[in-house]
Amino acid sequence: MAKKQEFVKEITKMEDDFPQWYTDVIMKTDMVDYSPVKGFMVIKPYGYAIWENIQSFLDRRFKETGHQNCYFPLLIPESLLNKEKEHVEGFAPEVAWVTHGGSEKLAERLCVRPTSETIICSMYSKWLTSYRELPYLYNQWCSVVRWEKSTRPFLRTSEFLWQEGHTLHETAEEAQAETLQMLSIYKEMAEDLLAIPMVDGRKSDRERFAGAESTYTIEALMHDGKALQSGTSHNLAQHFTKAFDITFQGRSGELEYPHHTSWGVSTRLIGGIIMVHGDNRGLVLPPRVAPIQVVIIPIAQNKEGVLDKAYEIKKELEAKGIRVKLDDDTNYSPGWKFNQYEMKGVPLRLEIGPRDIEQNIAMIARRDDLSKESYSLDNLGESISALLDTVHNDMLRRATEYRDEKTFTFKDYEEFKVKMKESPGFAKGMWCGEEECEAKVKDETGVTIRCIPFNQENLGDTCHFCQKPAKHMIYAAKAY
Amino acid sequence: MAKKQEFVKEITKMEDDFPQWYTDVIMKTDMVDYSPVKGFMVIKPYGYAIWENIQSFLDRRFKETGHQNCYFPLLIPESLLNKEKEHVEGFAPEVAWVTHGGSEKLAERLCVRPTSETIICSMYSKWLTSYRELPYLYNQWCSVVRWEKSTRPFLRTSEFLWQEGHTLHETAEEAQAETLQMLSIYKEMAEDLLAIPMVDGRKSDRERFAGAESTYTIEALMHDGKALQSGTSHNLAQHFTKAFDITFQGRSGELEYPHHTSWGVSTRLIGGIIMVHGDNRGLVLPPRVAPIQVVIIPIAQNKEGVLDKAYEIKKELEAKGIRVKLDDDTNYSPGWKFNQYEMKGVPLRLEIGPRDIEQNIAMIARRDDLSKESYSLDNLGESISALLDTVHNDMLRRATEYRDEKTFTFKDYEEFKVKMKESPGFAKGMWCGEEECEAKVKDETGVTIRCIPFNQENLGDTCHFCQKPAKHMIYAAKAY
Ligand SMILES: [Zn+2]
Ligand SMILES: [Zn+2]
Repeated sequence: MAKKQEFVKEITKMEDDFPQWYTDVIMKTDMVDYSPVKGFMVIKPYGYAIWENIQSFLDRRFKETGHQNCYFPLLIPESLLNKEKEHVEGFAPEVAWVTHGGSEKLAERLCVRPTSETIICSMYSKWLTSYRELPYLYNQWCSVVRWEKSTRPFLRTSEFLWQEGHTLHETAEEAQAETLQMLSIYKEMAEDLLAIPMVDGRKSDRERFAGAESTYTIEALMHDGKALQSGTSHNLAQHFTKAFDITFQGRSGELEYPHHTSWGVSTRLIGGIIMVHGDNRGLVLPPRVAPIQVVIIPIAQNKEGVLDKAYEIKKELEAKGIRVKLDDDTNYSPGWKFNQYEMKGVPLRLEIGPRDIEQNIAMIARRDDLSKESYSLDNLGESISALLDTVHNDMLRRATEYRDEKTFTFKDYEEFKVKMKESPGFAKGMWCGEEECEAKVKDETGVTIRCIPFNQENLGDTCHFCQKPAKHMIYAAKAY
Repeated sequence: MAKKQEFVKEITKMEDDFPQWYTDVIMKTDMVDYSPVKGFMVIKPYGYAIWENIQSFLDRRFKETGHQNCYFPLLIPESLLNKEKEHVEGFAPEVAWVTHGGSEKLAERLCVRPTSETIICSMYSKWLTSYRELPYLYNQWCSVVRWEKSTRPFLRTSEFLWQEGHTLHETAEEAQAETLQMLSIYKEMAEDLLAIPMVDGRKSDRERFAGAESTYTIEALMHDGKALQSGTSHNLAQHFTKAFDITFQGRSGELEYPHHTSWGVSTRLIGGIIMVHGDNRGLVLPPRVAPIQVVIIPIAQNKEGVLDKAYEIKKELEAKGIRVKLDDDTNYSPGWKFNQYEMKGVPLRLEIGPRDIEQNIAMIARRDDLSKESYSLDNLGESISALLDTVHNDMLRRATEYRDEKTFTFKDYEEFKVKMKESPGFAKGMWCGEEECEAKVKDETGVTIRCIPFNQENLGDTCHFCQKPAKHMIYAAKAY
């Protein structure tokens, strides 16, 4: 037991220093590492496998909704980036510039893509001719670079992995429907795969994507009461299609500009998983996204029949599509392994020893609530499949309860400031809709309006910050 | 019929101008497009879906052989690139340099990765401590940039997509076994997925990877008699591990340098598929890698029951895991559609009309040999699954026969030069092993030694180029 305490002590307690807890967890569980290039991270296999599971879920849903993958160049000529005014103002300060190819200086600087609207629109402009070809429903999986001054692995790094969808539509209505459909797929992914409840809504003008008509977002609440913007979907209207002269012959025979959307989620989601579900023992991974769903630890594995049985169970679970690891390393004790996989957040630990085999049972320990129960070896695959679903549902329920506890309604700016200091979380209130009011709140408190939720409640007639007439109910929070 | 001829005429004949045929095929089938950045291509959905199928095959095989995916930074500091002497000499002339981040000039230039040995070794040096942690079996899927003066889509572009495996091993024997294992997985993929026969062997010193001890390769013969290097696997020995000071505590307690491999294939393979299997009507896609395996074209689709039956067949085939498209567009005639999907190389076309339904049959046309036969609608899924395998096997057999026809043994340099001019292909002969001899042949004829094949034959005692004592049997060819 002494060893266990020591082991767990390696991770700083959340309550003592949340940022340090986060760093301890990602480093000690081998998810990620700092690279020799400041602000760039290495995603190690245990972190990358989570991304692969997110990719697999989303890629399936994108294809089911008619999207196809493609690939556009990494480098974008400066002149293209400059074509949409708001866009270049938003991104130029944070791009990496390529100035030389081999030993030659380039005639025009190229930026490493911070996002691909401009290069993609330049191609769409070349391709599109008729309404018959619409909609364009394309997506790409790639990395993007945005030069950041202060970075944290997964949450904010100068390079990250993501997907970016870019679609064109004949009508404004179709573009709006696509924008909302993709946001709802993100929300479904967050809840069904990551067990993270999301608030969905629209960004204020101040917070929207550079060049968008409207940006929609899903926002999650982390354990420390800060919000994480977890996915965005933009209705770009005709801002880019006009700037890039993308036209098509419409049904009436006239040339028209198509309506445009883009949407993306990134490896930042992995940071969200850690900060929503993790605890002082380390990671707690939602089962559907966990690289290892069940770790089998044989007890007294030198005893006859133990390893055979352990391998038999592994095979049975794998046949059910469960991701299993059997750790039969003889260099470490079962106790050391328990701690190790607990820290790594493996949802279920299955212990099997000589006495269990005699009784035709296995002990199964849940990572999420630390409970332990014995299960019959008969139909173990089915019991464990069901248990993984139970763990998922319990984790989503607990995360939702926690978020709701941390969500408060404020009546005025003073109450807001006090509550945000004492017990930060989602603040619900009415807002006048004015950028000036929003900017003042941010300057004075560091809190931003996270979104104007789809699910509007009428909490009063005046802005809870400035007392002008209210326009929207909003969620505000400090954010990553 | 007039329309059909016109349609096919759009593609230049192979015999008239092979490079133009290639360009016509990739452009007219919507696989790829040129981008606004010289030498950079856009991979469109029909080309990208082929890459996804290659990825899916390889990713499964990599994981089955114990490899894990991860992700290393896109940008590499100049000082890291400089650490291995041969490597920097090989790559520095063709890298893109990032000199500014946002508005700030960087203290040190960063290159966009041309390959990742250096950045990965800098991390391995930080991570590795003991022999117990070995082997490291890591892979990443990403894009790389190599500044090229003259480019052709898929074959040679300034950016391309690939995977790069990077492994560390305790012993030289294990590294060599890994190097050969990965080459054999590439060969398996080429033959079982792409229906392309490969010659496997070792590169000459002149042709090996910059920094490698030995490079192994798979080489395919294109329809015009030129070779395509299709995948390489490098035994890097301790060249990089010493340069990057990667050490581990060995079994004896002493510090040792691990043995190192790297291996990769890229989107260049798609160029190989086109140039091995294509014909004057356009693409001919091997069924296992084809984005669409069967296209269903309803005949007289306005007649009652035709579309219902067509959808029923689609569903049945999809349930068998077959990739199906049903084209029920009423803007185009069946004849137009036949030409379209023929050009796009869809392996099987299924026609279903009122008379077929009456007779409980469907007509199926094979793209590879243009034969047409009727099949009973009973157990159609099974018939078509079997037929797809037949098509694959026939394509691989024909490509092998063609390659063998184009492979000749030469007795001396004069005969070699004449044959290479009259009927280029793989030239088999003996070689002295001297770099000078190899360089002379390349300078005078443009032909390179493609590999020293594993399957050695003794064709004489003297070098067939220069008459010095022979060391190896080699394959030589002009190459892409
Ligand atoms: Zn206000
Ligand atoms: Zn010679």
